[in-house]
Amino acid sequence: MSLIREKVGQAAGLLREFGVDCWITFTRESEICGDPTLVFLAPGHVTWHSAFVVCADGRTRAIVGLYDRKGIEETGAYDKVVGFVTGIKEPLLEFLREADPRTIAVNYSEGSEIADGLTHGMYLTLRRFLAEAGMADRFVSAERIVSALRERKSEAEIGWMKRAVRETEEIYGLVAGFVAPGKTESEIAAFILAEAERRGLPTAWGRATCPAVFTGPDTAQAHYGPTGRIVEPGHILNMDFGVKVEGYCSDMQRTFYVLAPGETDAPEDVMKGFRTIVRAVEESRRAMRPGVQGLEIDAVARGIVTGAGYAEFPHALGHQVGRFAHDGTALLGPPWEKYARKPFQKLEAGMVFTIEPRLTVAGRGVVTIEEMVVVTRDGAEWLGRPQKELVLVR
Amino acid sequence: MSLIREKVGQAAGLLREFGVDCWITFTRESEICGDPTLVFLAPGHVTWHSAFVVCADGRTRAIVGLYDRKGIEETGAYDKVVGFVTGIKEPLLEFLREADPRTIAVNYSEGSEIADGLTHGMYLTLRRFLAEAGMADRFVSAERIVSALRERKSEAEIGWMKRAVRETEEIYGLVAGFVAPGKTESEIAAFILAEAERRGLPTAWGRATCPAVFTGPDTAQAHYGPTGRIVEPGHILNMDFGVKVEGYCSDMQRTFYVLAPGETDAPEDVMKGFRTIVRAVEESRRAMRPGVQGLEIDAVARGIVTGAGYAEFPHALGHQVGRFAHDGTALLGPPWEKYARKPFQKLEAGMVFTIEPRLTVAGRGVVTIEEMVVVTRDGAEWLGRPQKELVLVR
Repeated sequence: MSLIREKVGQAAGLLREFGVDCWITFTRESEICGDPTLVFLAPGHVTWHSAFVVCADGRTRAIVGLYDRKGIEETGAYDKVVGFVTGIKEPLLEFLREADPRTIAVNYSEGSEIADGLTHGMYLTLRRFLAEAGMADRFVSAERIVSALRERKSEAEIGWMKRAVRETEEIYGLVAGFVAPGKTESEIAAFILAEAERRGLPTAWGRATCPAVFTGPDTAQAHYGPTGRIVEPGHILNMDFGVKVEGYCSDMQRTFYVLAPGETDAPEDVMKGFRTIVRAVEESRRAMRPGVQGLEIDAVARGIVTGAGYAEFPHALGHQVGRFAHDGTALLGPPWEKYARKPFQKLEAGMVFTIEPRLTVAGRGVVTIEEMVVVTRDGAEWLGRPQKELVLVR
Repeated sequence: MSLIREKVGQAAGLLREFGVDCWITFTRESEICGDPTLVFLAPGHVTWHSAFVVCADGRTRAIVGLYDRKGIEETGAYDKVVGFVTGIKEPLLEFLREADPRTIAVNYSEGSEIADGLTHGMYLTLRRFLAEAGMADRFVSAERIVSALRERKSEAEIGWMKRAVRETEEIYGLVAGFVAPGKTESEIAAFILAEAERRGLPTAWGRATCPAVFTGPDTAQAHYGPTGRIVEPGHILNMDFGVKVEGYCSDMQRTFYVLAPGETDAPEDVMKGFRTIVRAVEESRRAMRPGVQGLEIDAVARGIVTGAGYAEFPHALGHQVGRFAHDGTALLGPPWEKYARKPFQKLEAGMVFTIEPRLTVAGRGVVTIEEMVVVTRDGAEWLGRPQKELVLVR
């Protein structure tokens, strides 16, 4: 409730900052295909066409189906909540004719999925409505507004994420005592999930791949569920996992090495890979500060990995984290087609990023660490305790 | 897995039936704002731009980010799965140039949210790609294809829904022994959720309002969570609840009456309301068969309720149910703006609908029953046992 009041209040300021008169989030049946921004605007799902309107002058209005009204009214975030029975057009146009905004920002973006919650059908409907009021040419993309609303995190949001990180670190600590040669990826994943459940923590993304557990050289490497593959001596084991606290995610990877008979430490090929990743993570964090573009940070880590003789990782160095494990627009990524303008965005204070370079050690597996950092006024700080030592499994 | 093969196979036939050459589901970061059709096309979430392409001649291709490839390949539903690293444009255009379809259906619809999974930003991206191949004017809406894929349910899908209905009926049976004057709405909801959990059943929609429990004359009536309001003698109590079995939902409402001291049966005002609703439900079901428009069925129930002297219910008589509690396009609804063309769709065999008229008994509460029926070749059959008797609470 208070989050919604805070975000709706923050939005009016963002409209002024970006020179937009009015912002409309227009969505329906949000359980089926809702706008990801809705979570900051309403306390639950909406059923029928719903418009959440914020104006630069501070006026706010929600126009929703009759049965969705009460819960939204109780947030106290809107001057007025209108509940309609037969259709949204008239109450929406009534408000817009009165406000007469010169620019109307709506949630679409080619370059940022988090700002792209308006479906094409809903866009056509809204354009049809606004054409009736002579306002069809006033649309602009709300990408900057929607992104900033998620990216400039408050102290409370950072606090929840730090708790999510701490819980994840604790669970990884327990896993270190559970992993052993002969255990399967699935058994390790089940152990992690049971521990998260015991703590009452939802996973940060779908349970099928949260945690992801990869052992040895022949895995899918990422985005794939745990299998019956067995932990074997001489292999590298890595995991990707996160939880949610108050709806805010952690997203962290850790790397383990399974000692072979007679070994007391990891062999040099594994150590070299691990040291390279630790250095890439640390140097990336040190390069981060407001005003720097994400692609500059990506280049730091990518250069360290390739400079050490490894193939470059086939993904961005890091993404933002928030209510989704992948959140926000600005990205620590290379200027590839699929990332659009994201890597060119400048970092801002309050943004929370992962840093997650990876490399493959031939015949052993994948070394990858994923840390989380928050951009501060003049740098970037860890949200938790970064992995500096390889976890040895006996 | 087998569901995906079945649906991808079904799709090619639908393309031929609706005279469309090619159908593309184009989505990204599906955990954030995914296309609701994705569940029939891939075994989990996708991360980067992803295209699932089916052609009328039976050709199929999935083009997805590298790390999402393996899981999709394993479905066996596609001739070929391409995993890209830097961007989707080239592999997508390569396939389309080769297939050269005259019409390309994409998932947008003003009138049906279930067929409106393409975001406006993704639409712009796809149009930009196709313009490069000289195909930008070939877009059509995939509403009919996407709807039929969900609406024409297989025996297996109907079987899962019958199980979901039976579980819901059993839980309602147990609730009848738990409800008593002095219990709160929240306590009743907690009892229902605990029973669903004991059975390992997820709720059919968000737990905040599933179950919804409303007692007495002063409630929000629908779409609102249970409160501390107390069950009182002389009041009507109604509940709305559903579960999922194999991903398929039930959605059912039941009405209870709390006997006042000295009463052995419900008073006449309550009984008249209850009989009216039972009759409206039964007459609606009897009017259902393939080829009839949804608005005709809505009019049957609406006429019975208003004919008995009650205000008309401010919502559609019934919606389809499937993987979402609100599913499909065709609707048993009145021709109101917000329902667009849905009430004009003709019923088809295999569609599963709710029938849920409601009315208010002054000073007592709301009488509403929600049953589920499947349209057959020549009529409509209950998926469970309809409520014919008011549940009396002592």
